Order: sequence, then structure tokens, then C-alpha cells
Amino acid sequence: MKKNESRDMEMSFLQFIAGAFPRHPLQENRLNESDAEIINWKGQNAEYLVFKTDGIHEEIREKLYEDPYLVGWMGVTVTISDIAAVGADPFGILISLQLPRDTPAYWIKLFQKGVHDACTTYGVLVLGGDTNFDKEVSVNTTGVATLRNHTPLMRKPMQAGELLYATGLLGNGAAYAYSKLVNKSLGIHYFPMARLIETKVIRQFATACIDTSDGFFPALSILTNLNSVGLKIREPVNRILSKDAMKVSQLEGIPDWFFLAGPHGEYELLFTIPRSYKKDFEKACADLDWLPLLIGEVTTTKQVEFTTRQTDVTCPATAIANIWQQANENPCTYMHLLLEQDEHWLTRKTLCYAD
Amino acid sequence: MKKNESRDMEMSFLQFIAGAFPRHPLQENRLNESDAEIINWKGQNAEYLVFKTDGIHEEIREKLYEDPYLVGWMGVTVTISDIAAVGADPFGILISLQLPRDTPAYWIKLFQKGVHDACTTYGVLVLGGDTNFDKEVSVNTTGVATLRNHTPLMRKPMQAGELLYATGLLGNGAAYAYSKLVNKSLGIHYFPMARLIETKVIRQFATACIDTSDGFFPALSILTNLNSVGLKIREPVNRILSKDAMKVSQLEGIPDWFFLAGPHGEYELLFTIPRSYKKDFEKACADLDWLPLLIGEVTTTKQVEFTTRQTDVTCPATAIANIWQQANENPCTYMHLLLEQDEHWLTRKTLCYAD
Repeated sequence: MKKNESRDMEMSFLQFIAGAFPRHPLQENRLNESDAEIINWKGQNAEYLVFKTDGIHEEIREKLYEDPYLVGWMGVTVTISDIAAVGADPFGILISLQLPRDTPAYWIKLFQKGVHDACTTYGVLVLGGDTNFDKEVSVNTTGVATLRNHTPLMRKPMQAGELLYATGLLGNGAAYAYSKLVNKSLGIHYFPMARLIETKVIRQFATACIDTSDGFFPALSILTNLNSVGLKIREPVNRILSKDAMKVSQLEGIPDWFFLAGPHGEYELLFTIPRSYKKDFEKACADLDWLPLLIGEVTTTKQVEFTTRQTDVTCPATAIANIWQQANENPCTYMHLLLEQDEHWLTRKTLCYAD
Repeated sequence: MKKNESRDMEMSFLQFIAGAFPRHPLQENRLNESDAEIINWKGQNAEYLVFKTDGIHEEIREKLYEDPYLVGWMGVTVTISDIAAVGADPFGILISLQLPRDTPAYWIKLFQKGVHDACTTYGVLVLGGDTNFDKEVSVNTTGVATLRNHTPLMRKPMQAGELLYATGLLGNGAAYAYSKLVNKSLGIHYFPMARLIETKVIRQFATACIDTSDGFFPALSILTNLNSVGLKIREPVNRILSKDAMKVSQLEGIPDWFFLAGPHGEYELLFTIPRSYKKDFEKACADLDWLPLLIGEVTTTKQVEFTTRQTDVTCPATAIANIWQQANENPCTYMHLLLEQDEHWLTRKTLCYAD
């Protein structure tokens, strides 16, 4: 199978399912154009109603999330993060939970505490739910939100020259996954926070926005494809990595860019700001006591440019985002393919996968 | 274990999960008081926003739903039926789908057709979704609806003297399950329709409403417990059974009331109408060319009274609703317990389970 075929097949398979249905005439976003579903509710005062359904299934099955508190926290966070990415204000959540019959009471208590703390943090309330017994734990949530006096943020438009920001340092999703699945002794902490506070500023200035739920390069892949643009990452990769990602990179000798390749992300927001808004935007952030991370800019070629260990790399973001699928989602094969790709870049050979 | 203990444990287990969270101040219904979640949106013109998340998991796992068209149809119908039960008008649905990687294309096509036809029938559009790969198929949907110029229907209040109606003949859920799991040669057709048209009349007159998603007696169990009332079924059981349920009852020699015991229902609505509204209600139904089924009335004792094969039975609805759990959800054990119960009633011995 050709290098990008399996990922492409999976994408088209999933789009095939979702794309078969007509859209609501008041729906603002087309398929994949935004992190959440946006309904124009104008004339009803609320302006926009925003919905999102998302879940954690593989993360539980692959034992990435085992702590019931984290399962509860993430079940809410994955959905609220998407709502933050469109700039909306969530007010409620519905929870669909599947549990084994013999789930112990302490597990439920901690799960509930995770849900409760996330809801309190995000200012949302549990509107309802549905619990069923099943062999494995599985959590699906649907968030409901409103958006008034702002246009919703979508994954487009983006124009060459605009600045690319992140709400925070990146790579923690991968560092945590490595620590959980490969070297437990690293003990990396993982506790993403949906960027609801920051989005109140972002939505006033940004042209496009997406969260890094699947990692940084997978997010760039969506943005560059949807907008037919490229992205130049100005900072060397190690300067945009979180402390924990840097620590794992150094202790384990793992190339820095691996931590941005997905598939497990850190739920930061990536967004673009026109240059002319830079000053006003950064001032509004400072008023929040928040320093956004300026990481690059939008270019015209459909490539990403970044620097890893003094080596400049140019490749399509999609090529990096696809490696996980090319590895058939096998962590060992994945690591092998990433290393192979890294060697090709560093030795300046013909690019192997991401070309 | 005592007779009702396992069912009670399961109920309290599930309530324990859902009951731990504070309610939205604008939420009209408390836990279990209605089929869907009702948010008072007054002052925003829409008056009420209604949400419901529901799924089909066990039905697929136990091979009750195998036809992909039925899986798609039911995935939408289970949620829209609950929205019909609160008298709301649905406008959109979000679909969370889990599928094995090797799901064949024809399966997806038929599933999509089932979803599409249900959505067209109910006048709702797919707002978004989330598809993941898993070992087994599982469908979860979240419906969103509005309700204007009417108060929402809840499972309460009900008062002695009010009349109990159903939107249609009952027992088809059980007849289908029997035909699918026990005697395939019966070939019973199952194609429930969420009662959205009928609810436009029902919501003008009814005091309480619930759907029979889990069967007739389980619905009565919820109504009698929540309202501290009883229900007298005026018609002999065989007069309120669907043609197919009667057919299976006669061909297989199965007592008629078994088809009302759950756990698989037919998605009709049960609702109560004050006597003084009877004439106006029935006239409004006639205008729709629809004949609702008057099946009984609300009484003061917390029992259900019904007649099976010339034998009058009085027992708590909960006792019948609990037998499935007492049988540990094993169909053979279930049948055995139902037969034992039936014999006790018919021979006028001390009641065995439902007493």
C-alpha cells in the first residue's frame, strides 16, 4: 500500500459516513470546517447555538487513560475543547457512559469527581445522560453552547502573512502517552484544560482556530489542506515543546518533533491573527495575564517549514500526520517509521515518508 | 438475593452515577422526571430547548438489531421518541458511531439509508458526529429540539381519575425480540415510528407522558412510582396487543401479558388525559385521522390492575418490570420466571414474584 493510502482510506471512510447527510440550512460550517457544529440561531437572540459530540474510546481501550478521575475529566474536556475552538460559551453537557457491570464503587466516585471538577471549571452543568452496561468503559459527551455578539471561529479562512499562535507549549499529549505506554518511570502528568478563558480574547481577533486534540502536525494538516496554505514555524521545535516533552525528549533521546506528530494531543488551541491585529491582540492577552505563544506564520506554499536540531525541514503537514496510520496504529512500528523519517531528514537523503 | 434486589441495585447504581451532579438552574425536569432534558429558554423566544442522548448498544450486541438499515433507523428513533414524549419539535441530531475497521461498504450504505430515512421522516438533520473504530458496532445519538407555546410533557403529574391512553397497540417490541432470538420462522417485522405527529395533539391535553422504549409494564412502573398512583387497565390484555404480538402469543402458546413485560419495547407513547378533556382530545385526534387507544385510568392504590385470559390480576407494576433483572437478563431464565408468575396468578396461589 502506498504511503498515504491507509490514512486516506480511513479519512474517506469516515467522511463517507458523515458526508452522506444533508446539512441544516442554518448550519454555518460545512463538514470538517470547524471543531464543532454551529447553528445560526439569529433572530432568536442567542445568535448561535453550538453542539459537539465527542468521546474517549481508544484512549481507554489502549490504557492511556486508566485513572477514573482522568477518564471523567477528559470525557468532558475533549468536547469542551472543541467548543472553545469555535469561540462559544458552553452551558451544558450530556454524558453517555458505558461501564462493566462489576465496576467498583470507588471507580464511579472518582469518575464522577473528574466529571464534576471539569464541569465546575468550565462552568457547564450535566443536563442528562444515558448509562449502559458493556464489557469496557466508554465515554461519549455532547456539549451545548451559545455564541453571542461574535462570529464563530472556524478552521478557515487563513491567509498568507497571518501569524500562527498557540495557547500554550505543545507536546504534552505525546510525552504523556510515551510515559504511560513505554516508560512508566517518567511519570509525566497529563491534565489538559479546555481553553475557554483564552478563547474569549481569541474570538475577537482570530481568523481561524483548531484544537490540538490529535497533536500539532495533524492540526496543521487540516489547516493547510482546508485553506490551501503553508505554515512556517519560526521557533525551533524544542522552543515550542512543553517542559515535560523536553524532559522525555532529552532523557530518552527522542527527536523533539516526534512530540508534535500525534496522534495524542494536548488540547491547546492553534489560531491565526492578522498582522495588523498583533498589537491589540497581545495587549488583550496581557490584560488576561496570559502570554500566547507566537510560533509562526501562514505561507503560500502548501508545506510546513520547521527546524529540528539545527536542521530545516520542509514537507507537507499531512505527510507527518499520516505516519501513525501508515504504522497501522502500532506504537512500535510508529516509532520505527518516525526514526526512519528523522534519519532521512538529518542526513539530507531523499525524504522517505513526508515528501 | 431478594426478588427485587438486583433490579433495585442496578437502578440505584445508574442513578448514583447521574444523580451526583448539580442541575442546571433553568432545567425544568429533575432526574427521571421526563423522557428528555428540558431547559427553560424563556426570554430567548424559543421558550424551551430540549436535549436527549440515547443509544443502541445491547440491542446490537445481543443481535436483536442486525440489519444495518434497522440499526440506522433505530439509532435515530430511540432519541427522537424521547423528544416526542416531552412534546418537543426536534430539528437536529448528532451521531456518535463506533464501527469495526472491516465494516463492509454495503453495511455503511444501508446504515446511512436508515439514518437518512429516519431523519427525513422526523424532519431532523444530522448536525454532526464522531466516528471511531471499535470491535463492535455501537450507535449513540443526541437529539436537539425546541418547544414553543406549550409546556413540556413530563412523566408527572398524574391524578386518580385521569384516563390512560396509548398511541397504538402494544407488544410488538417483545414479539419481534421473540421472533429474532427464539423462533426466526415467525418473521415478525419491527419498525417503530417516533410519535412526533401525535404528540402535537397530546401536548395540548396530556398531564403526563412516557414512551414504551423498555416495554409497557416498565413504563407503568416509572409512572406509578413517580406519581404514587395506580393504573387500572380496562381492556383485557389481548385487546391492547398488536396483531403480531397476538399472532406470536397464539402460535407459540405464550401468555398475552408477557408481551408487555419488557425489556424491549415498541416506542409508543403512554399518556394521561383529564376526563374533562376527553371529548376535545378525541376530536383533535380525529382531525388528525388518528384513533388513540384508551386503555385505562389512574387509581389511588400503587398497583396495576389488568385482566389476562379472564383472570384479574393486581400487582405493583415494578414487580413485573423487575423480572428481567431477577432473571439476570438471561432470556431462558426470564421466560421461566414469567411462566412461574403466570401459573401462580392463574391458579390463584400466593403470588410468586409480582406481589
